[in-house]
Amino acid sequence: MAEVVHMIDSEVFLAFSTYATIVILKMMLMSLVTSYFRLTKQVFANIEDTMLVKTTDDKKKLVRIDPDVERVRRCHLNDLENIVPFVVIGLLYALTGPDLSSALLHFRVFVGSRFIHTVTYVLALPQPSRGLVFGVGLLTTLSMAYRVLTTALFL
Amino acid sequence: MAEVVHMIDSEVFLAFSTYATIVILKMMLMSLVTSYFRLTKQVFANIEDTMLVKTTDDKKKLVRIDPDVERVRRCHLNDLENIVPFVVIGLLYALTGPDLSSALLHFRVFVGSRFIHTVTYVLALPQPSRGLVFGVGLLTTLSMAYRVLTTALFL
Amino acid sequence: MAEVVHMIDSEVFLAFSTYATIVILKMMLMSLVTSYFRLTKQVFANIEDTMLVKTTDDKKKLVRIDPDVERVRRCHLNDLENIVPFVVIGLLYALTGPDLSSALLHFRVFVGSRFIHTVTYVLALPQPSRGLVFGVGLLTTLSMAYRVLTTALFL
Repeated sequence: MAEVVHMIDSEVFLAFSTYATIVILKMMLMSLVTSYFRLTKQVFANIEDTMLVKTTDDKKKLVRIDPDVERVRRCHLNDLENIVPFVVIGLLYALTGPDLSSALLHFRVFVGSRFIHTVTYVLALPQPSRGLVFGVGLLTTLSMAYRVLTTALFL
Repeated sequence: MAEVVHMIDSEVFLAFSTYATIVILKMMLMSLVTSYFRLTKQVFANIEDTMLVKTTDDKKKLVRIDPDVERVRRCHLNDLENIVPFVVIGLLYALTGPDLSSALLHFRVFVGSRFIHTVTYVLALPQPSRGLVFGVGLLTTLSMAYRVLTTALFL
Repeated sequence: MAEVVHMIDSEVFLAFSTYATIVILKMMLMSLVTSYFRLTKQVFANIEDTMLVKTTDDKKKLVRIDPDVERVRRCHLNDLENIVPFVVIGLLYALTGPDLSSALLHFRVFVGSRFIHTVTYVLALPQPSRGLVFGVGLLTTLSMAYRVLTTALFL
């Protein structure tokens, strides 16, 4: 397994591994935030989930839509739509052998933008704040995709 | 392509490839389950899809929401939210050179938890069964993320 | 980083990198199509987003559901559900050392099928056109998964 050990020793690949793991963990956190809101606000998507709380209400009434829960879920879906492209393109980008400083810049800006995006989304900060941080993350991924396609193009 | 052949010969990487493929195939199956329910229950998301069944009803009435279809779709989305982190973090984890027995334990527990999760979700088994298997999968991924960050941290 | 450079020089891996990047960029485009429809049709998911347009209407009324926006969102989610499996299984498939011509066939058919799928979905072309291109993409991914499991099986 010499090659694999060597690969994981490349600083760019180590940096990719670190930032990809951090941003994926941030995305996973959205599941827990959703569960927290569902349990504290007693808002469920499935009838069997109402067992998880004590209530005097009719259990069927707890299967409902809540704006705060839906907001967290939209934020989670937006993470999936943007972090999956970052991880795939970022992995390929890391394999094109970029400068460490360029790679770190891309990874830090993207991961930072997604943390700020979550804050702007969950707190409903005034637009265009969320739109701008979304755009920063998008452009970072596009910049890495540009390098992958110019380095590795094989159609 | 010597290195790549070598990499795929690492037993940990072979195990990752096997379990990642199996759990991704399980996730893809949810699309087919959704289609099956849509066709047999005549419940569609798009007006053009109503062409796919013979009916004496007004076609527009077949574009509707059905609780069973929505349940399968929530299960599918939950797969995406959890299997994507497993695949990304599992790949990086496999590259950190863990013991084969530790790696197999992580992969088997995660993949097993997602199969059981699907059964508990689709059959609407009483909680906290689904919550517990969700938690087992989450902790397995977190354990792999811990190893990636302690082995490869480069900020 | 010799091994990584070598890996990226494998023609199959270069081809995978190219097609994976293209199809991920196509998926990312769906975010922009959604934003375009939301802004031009003045249909928003969040109250703070209504700041982004000038209107004489009550802003709260712009937080609503629109069939065209929902169609684009379903298409985007369908991309996530299918392109993620392609990327994961395609990467593992590329590492099994397939013939370049077989690999190119798989990558081209899959990526082509997803572009056509988007056209059939957004333009609401008559079924079974969308169902068929969905099936072509699914079978392509299953064919690669078959090779991964027969080459790398390690349970």
